[in-house]
Amino acid sequence: MFDSIHEECGVFGIWEPHTSDVAKTTYLALYALQHRGQESCGIAVNDDGVITHYRDNGLVPDVFTAENLNKLGKGNIAVGHVRYSTTGGVNRANAQPLDIRHVKGNLALAHNGNLTNADELRNKYEMNGAIFHGTNDTEVIAYSITNARLRTPSIEKAIECSMHELKGAYSLVLMSATKLIAARDPNGFRPLCLGKTEDGAYVFASESCALDTINATLVRDLLPGEIVIVKGGEIISIKTHCGGKGSMCVFEFIYFARPDSEIEGVSVHHARIHAGELLAREHPVPADVVIGVPNSGLDAAMGYAKESGIPYAIGFIKNNYVGRSFIQPTQGQREDAVRVKLNVLRANIAGKRVIMVDDSIVRGTTSARIVKLLRDAGATEVHIRISSPPFVSPCYFGTDIDSTDKLIACRLDSCDKIAAEIGADTLGYLSVKSIHEMAQGAKIKFCDGCFTGVYPVAIPTSSIKNKFESKISDNR
Amino acid sequence: MFDSIHEECGVFGIWEPHTSDVAKTTYLALYALQHRGQESCGIAVNDDGVITHYRDNGLVPDVFTAENLNKLGKGNIAVGHVRYSTTGGVNRANAQPLDIRHVKGNLALAHNGNLTNADELRNKYEMNGAIFHGTNDTEVIAYSITNARLRTPSIEKAIECSMHELKGAYSLVLMSATKLIAARDPNGFRPLCLGKTEDGAYVFASESCALDTINATLVRDLLPGEIVIVKGGEIISIKTHCGGKGSMCVFEFIYFARPDSEIEGVSVHHARIHAGELLAREHPVPADVVIGVPNSGLDAAMGYAKESGIPYAIGFIKNNYVGRSFIQPTQGQREDAVRVKLNVLRANIAGKRVIMVDDSIVRGTTSARIVKLLRDAGATEVHIRISSPPFVSPCYFGTDIDSTDKLIACRLDSCDKIAAEIGADTLGYLSVKSIHEMAQGAKIKFCDGCFTGVYPVAIPTSSIKNKFESKISDNR
Amino acid sequence: MFDSIHEECGVFGIWEPHTSDVAKTTYLALYALQHRGQESCGIAVNDDGVITHYRDNGLVPDVFTAENLNKLGKGNIAVGHVRYSTTGGVNRANAQPLDIRHVKGNLALAHNGNLTNADELRNKYEMNGAIFHGTNDTEVIAYSITNARLRTPSIEKAIECSMHELKGAYSLVLMSATKLIAARDPNGFRPLCLGKTEDGAYVFASESCALDTINATLVRDLLPGEIVIVKGGEIISIKTHCGGKGSMCVFEFIYFARPDSEIEGVSVHHARIHAGELLAREHPVPADVVIGVPNSGLDAAMGYAKESGIPYAIGFIKNNYVGRSFIQPTQGQREDAVRVKLNVLRANIAGKRVIMVDDSIVRGTTSARIVKLLRDAGATEVHIRISSPPFVSPCYFGTDIDSTDKLIACRLDSCDKIAAEIGADTLGYLSVKSIHEMAQGAKIKFCDGCFTGVYPVAIPTSSIKNKFESKISDNR
Amino acid sequence: MFDSIHEECGVFGIWEPHTSDVAKTTYLALYALQHRGQESCGIAVNDDGVITHYRDNGLVPDVFTAENLNKLGKGNIAVGHVRYSTTGGVNRANAQPLDIRHVKGNLALAHNGNLTNADELRNKYEMNGAIFHGTNDTEVIAYSITNARLRTPSIEKAIECSMHELKGAYSLVLMSATKLIAARDPNGFRPLCLGKTEDGAYVFASESCALDTINATLVRDLLPGEIVIVKGGEIISIKTHCGGKGSMCVFEFIYFARPDSEIEGVSVHHARIHAGELLAREHPVPADVVIGVPNSGLDAAMGYAKESGIPYAIGFIKNNYVGRSFIQPTQGQREDAVRVKLNVLRANIAGKRVIMVDDSIVRGTTSARIVKLLRDAGATEVHIRISSPPFVSPCYFGTDIDSTDKLIACRLDSCDKIAAEIGADTLGYLSVKSIHEMAQGAKIKFCDGCFTGVYPVAIPTSSIKNKFESKISDNR
Repeated sequence: MFDSIHEECGVFGIWEPHTSDVAKTTYLALYALQHRGQESCGIAVNDDGVITHYRDNGLVPDVFTAENLNKLGKGNIAVGHVRYSTTGGVNRANAQPLDIRHVKGNLALAHNGNLTNADELRNKYEMNGAIFHGTNDTEVIAYSITNARLRTPSIEKAIECSMHELKGAYSLVLMSATKLIAARDPNGFRPLCLGKTEDGAYVFASESCALDTINATLVRDLLPGEIVIVKGGEIISIKTHCGGKGSMCVFEFIYFARPDSEIEGVSVHHARIHAGELLAREHPVPADVVIGVPNSGLDAAMGYAKESGIPYAIGFIKNNYVGRSFIQPTQGQREDAVRVKLNVLRANIAGKRVIMVDDSIVRGTTSARIVKLLRDAGATEVHIRISSPPFVSPCYFGTDIDSTDKLIACRLDSCDKIAAEIGADTLGYLSVKSIHEMAQGAKIKFCDGCFTGVYPVAIPTSSIKNKFESKISDNR
Repeated sequence: MFDSIHEECGVFGIWEPHTSDVAKTTYLALYALQHRGQESCGIAVNDDGVITHYRDNGLVPDVFTAENLNKLGKGNIAVGHVRYSTTGGVNRANAQPLDIRHVKGNLALAHNGNLTNADELRNKYEMNGAIFHGTNDTEVIAYSITNARLRTPSIEKAIECSMHELKGAYSLVLMSATKLIAARDPNGFRPLCLGKTEDGAYVFASESCALDTINATLVRDLLPGEIVIVKGGEIISIKTHCGGKGSMCVFEFIYFARPDSEIEGVSVHHARIHAGELLAREHPVPADVVIGVPNSGLDAAMGYAKESGIPYAIGFIKNNYVGRSFIQPTQGQREDAVRVKLNVLRANIAGKRVIMVDDSIVRGTTSARIVKLLRDAGATEVHIRISSPPFVSPCYFGTDIDSTDKLIACRLDSCDKIAAEIGADTLGYLSVKSIHEMAQGAKIKFCDGCFTGVYPVAIPTSSIKNKFESKISDNR
Repeated sequence: MFDSIHEECGVFGIWEPHTSDVAKTTYLALYALQHRGQESCGIAVNDDGVITHYRDNGLVPDVFTAENLNKLGKGNIAVGHVRYSTTGGVNRANAQPLDIRHVKGNLALAHNGNLTNADELRNKYEMNGAIFHGTNDTEVIAYSITNARLRTPSIEKAIECSMHELKGAYSLVLMSATKLIAARDPNGFRPLCLGKTEDGAYVFASESCALDTINATLVRDLLPGEIVIVKGGEIISIKTHCGGKGSMCVFEFIYFARPDSEIEGVSVHHARIHAGELLAREHPVPADVVIGVPNSGLDAAMGYAKESGIPYAIGFIKNNYVGRSFIQPTQGQREDAVRVKLNVLRANIAGKRVIMVDDSIVRGTTSARIVKLLRDAGATEVHIRISSPPFVSPCYFGTDIDSTDKLIACRLDSCDKIAAEIGADTLGYLSVKSIHEMAQGAKIKFCDGCFTGVYPVAIPTSSIKNKFESKISDNR
Repeated sequence: MFDSIHEECGVFGIWEPHTSDVAKTTYLALYALQHRGQESCGIAVNDDGVITHYRDNGLVPDVFTAENLNKLGKGNIAVGHVRYSTTGGVNRANAQPLDIRHVKGNLALAHNGNLTNADELRNKYEMNGAIFHGTNDTEVIAYSITNARLRTPSIEKAIECSMHELKGAYSLVLMSATKLIAARDPNGFRPLCLGKTEDGAYVFASESCALDTINATLVRDLLPGEIVIVKGGEIISIKTHCGGKGSMCVFEFIYFARPDSEIEGVSVHHARIHAGELLAREHPVPADVVIGVPNSGLDAAMGYAKESGIPYAIGFIKNNYVGRSFIQPTQGQREDAVRVKLNVLRANIAGKRVIMVDDSIVRGTTSARIVKLLRDAGATEVHIRISSPPFVSPCYFGTDIDSTDKLIACRLDSCDKIAAEIGADTLGYLSVKSIHEMAQGAKIKFCDGCFTGVYPVAIPTSSIKNKFESKISDNR
């Protein structure tokens, strides 16, 4: 909740059989995907081949007013995007969808993921005359596709061709004058699903909760490597890049995705409850009550309670009014800031031995403050249980786990030391083995690189990783 | 959540032994009371007798910036206020605290409640030369106290004197040049508690959750009719108006108060769980799962599940990003609006017989939409259980239950008819008897006027009620 | 332009024979009066006796949006107000019109001027039970009128009665449920005129330029001491307080009023040109060119040029984009700030002996910077001519000339010393005698208190003046 | 003032010998160039090779706050830009300076003008893989320069090379990691000058008034076709493209430029006065007074008065508070809108024969309203004199005179008909011959294409012009 890991994007696209208010539908869908990115958002609308977009830094309700939604006008295809907010300066030039004017046809493009060879491709295209306005991978993908398009007869062929050179994680939604197209990288690092409405519209979204919001039904997830084209009411699938071993980011199940989404055939909520059950088996401890840290630790806490037989209870009330405009307290008041955001429900804690379940620990500072709140409220013991393994390696596929030196699990080499620093009586992490079991019945395998340092594809050298970061820093 | 009853205010006051950042402390406390009023808020700071205030329409984070908090400056006494937002125009002139310049000493005044004789008093003072800028009762109270002050030797005596003519519900927090004073009406309609910090500060607040936020401990609730003065680090209590039969608003326990507050010795969360237990005893039904409507129905749902033995589950995920700037859909899209705000966690509902617990039904329209969401998600049966009795009469003591003709329980004369209109299989309300038992161990009796039409004090004639409303309407 | 004297208000009122968009008309008129006050503004609309108002800190275009003008609705009477912006904190509680709910009928009241006995009256009413929210005289006037109203049969009689106790400067516009009323103090310190439109509406305004804006024609100025009532399409005049010796503020002609206004039968523009002519006669000097400091010095410069025969030229171009949001430069860049706002038209200045005409000198710092700009642009001589006498005494009648210690004419005891400090070759002020001649044909005499220290009415003691200031300082 | 012709941009660049607050200096300079573009603005700062930019839609004071100026940080080179505001939607993607990341070195680029072969070049680069985000010519120029850079050893060589293919009007200011470079097209359509400060900084600006603002002195105008490089404190000039016949836009002298600017050795103010003199010779008429339409007609009115011997007078007072947030009146109130913005100074007009001088007539609607204002104020005759010839042809070189069908001089084929439509007694335009004489002593010849239809370079075919317009329309 306070120093957590961040997803880097959410994407959405819709194809309607008739001209309609696709901007408004996309707006509603982006609300459902807002948890995947709070830095910026945007919508591009296609009205008979003319593409209009609006995008800006900010949350969906702040960026989109009735006035600018109306200006986007009607159309029959639209794509939308939400992007993650870094704590420092944000670069408006990186907002998506990209809206590209091109001799072979205009495009609008939204992307979730990170390329592992972005810098190599950027260099290649610059040497051929390309100029870049921002620092995100999406501009690289746009060059790759438009350059392929000059040599291929259609946009879908161009994408198919481009996917030979794009390496890493990408879930794309893209529209041309007449087509809506989605593509998922051959590993399927990020989720991407296809839905359908009663009146014949097709939609693509990062998560199925966006489908529920617009009253669409989930058809299926895209296969890793699949390209799906919607044109004239027909669905066409290109599977040239399919067939590899999938390796979806398991942290989607642990934390990123909304609990009401269904991914690869599995309810995220149920996967989290099951993670809590597995956690209870791996790290039992006598206690009076099991509580979760809102909101991401609640499901696993329920599972832990169910498996352990220890009663589940509400441990904290979260103040939903504390948002971005909260005036940060000065150094001496930091603890108060946590108190404002999260209040202990004292009646459930005082005099109790407490098991507190959370989804992960990043730097550990917030966990320490929360443990103190519990002890101040009269908890006699505090046992922390984490429904994922410790982070030990960077992620190269679309999250911000990029520097390991601030991670508490890298600084301290045992659970006891971490527990001591946080002030907990005991601490237990879910095993790597168990995270592969939490999503029972999933149709895909998982990437556990951030927990193991073993990655399913080649990763960039560290020097390139740093170069990329410094490029970002000189912008806002 | 969508067409609910509203509390009309929250109050806060602090006395510090030394000059300090009382504005910031009050700001933090108002965050914790934000649920009691979202129309406007304000803070008044007392720096050695000089009172400065800032107030405006809007939520605490929107009204207070670092800049205007700084302008309020340091001081050793402060009072704060949050006020409820009506759906129509809001009147900035009604924002509180009132900041009054007066020959007998300046005052700042914050008030929660409604006087039943406001119009009589307003008329009396106008005939004596008073002029009114706004329409709220607080200005009436201010005239009553300042006029009494001209005839009495101190502000506390003036309040004691004024309380002889003030009728109805009021929890006041007030500061003069050197004193912080709180007063609660003889019935104790609205809650008001006293707290203390480790460094010797005294605070008053509508609810104890505000004390937690600023790391103060709850000392006790004010007695009905009590006046408490903080001056020079001493606490003085005036009990002239105490001793009557208390009649606190039971809806504070059912819905208004935050679950992490403790009122009259009872945890609000536990009272709600107990209401759910009583509800299960009164209205059992065979089912597969018990769910609550977020957030106010969750506690009672847990209690119902516990008592009935039917498993508790998460039925809905609430979208926390949907706030005031959400662009309201057009008529045909109303159902979508509910979908955006509240998504069914399908994996817990599909194929199940569902008991859905909520705290109350007002007009019934939202309940009907939510039932439809459950059925669309595959619920085979939907049984609604409400943790309070049906509303049948207006409230005159500080909530907005003022017109009975839109209340579904007034329009339809049986549970069956209401269930039919809402689309539920069955419907059960908690009995009036049980609401007097939900807060086990409470040190006060309760007002149940809105459920019974029987009030603990004389109420205004209906013509005056209407007059008051029309006065409000000609403002913004 | 940079450190000038400020008027404290502008007032407007309209009575229409039929319900119409009086809010919009008032909005247009306030634009024309904006120069009289930039701190705050407001409009109150009377729709069949129901008064609605909107007011806030800011300029007319910032405060009024299409949305809140629409919310004010239609009506047949309205009053409007603009208020001057002090450099320090501004107090929203002081925005006008006041909107008063009262048993004898609601009122809205707008006021321009300063009472000399405000503190005595405030004390008197407080001792009788009054409470004050703000610090402006308008609230005192409101109490005086409403208290008189309790003893008199009509609002106009109440005003007539109240004028016996109100001392000092006031031009009032006021509406009751059915009447629009204007009143001007017996000295006529501030201007106030009556106009009429072709469709039968009557309007009152501080200046006739507001009448032009709404296509009304000037009927006449109110007499000093006159009360004019518009009711049912009839004009009624009460002259009980008329007949004294008028003493209008001469600075209205010198600087405050817009040049396109006609006051007391005289064009302000022509009066300023004539002041320049008189100035040329009193202070001739050989030179090549006469320029004015924009915008207030331009008219007098034209008059000076005409009388002296020295060519008039444009000396400066003012940057109209530099407004409130200009980021103030740091100390070392102050001179640049003047350069941004005012650029010398070098082609007219280089190598020339320049006569620079301005309306007044307050602290002298800006004059010094402007002289430096001229010398940097190549002026060989700079002769300053001021179209008013030096300020030597405070004003008690509605301007902000309140502290004499910062006035350069109080600090330095000769024109030579002032010229030396400012860097001018010579300096000449218009004589006191001449300011009484500048508005040839005016139907009123003038107050010259700020130039002579001799006032037409009793002034408050200095201690009361200070007390009033400190009251303001504890607000925002 | 109301339906006038618009310039399309202003550019600025600065090179400082030491790291300093170049962002603030650029901010001040953009204020002085604000009249050249009110749609959007931007600043890019170069801190030791790292380029940071901020740009947005809006005026300089609205876009730049102290906070975002500070974020731009210190540096030793900066470029700035202001861009014209169309009445319809504005496209944030077109805001400048462009900030380009490129393998051969980063660039920031600001441009004033219009290419005549933009579409051909755009097509050429797209066929080579380029993608375009916006619709402005600057992106085309960026591709041209970066592609040339891949084949040339330095950025200045790349610009020299690129200028072989760029056709039309362009005044560029550009910075690389270490150099500040300015370039002006071989015709010199748009002005561009070089200045110097006392502490050794070099600056480029569209007009010399920007130099005055930052206390720099004008060194000289760039030659048509010249490239000037500032590097390491040295000035280098490349004159490969010089030597052609200059054809600067004469409308810069007539209307666009600020009167306090000096262009090609001539004071703009003096050129306008001289145009008024020529106009008086060409179109004399007996009258009592000569007035100018503020602000652009004032200088020529003075010249007309001087030459004719008829007295010059102030005819109108402009309301400086009426800006973008003015609430537009409904259809029936249009005339009032003009009244709010411009009030007749009746005392100078009533009973007079008036010569009203303006710089141009576009559609004629505003002129008609202004003539009516004069007649309503009592003018007995109104003679319009225009200090430029009638517009009859589009401009392709950086103004928005693009569609001739709304121009009154294209709709009506004689001065008499135009005078009749506008309601004037007589109308006279300055001759084409005279506009070539107005800027006496100018070091350049002029383009008069919009008055004659004869252009100094090849113009695009009309189909391409339309295509360009439609591209703009599908954006915001």
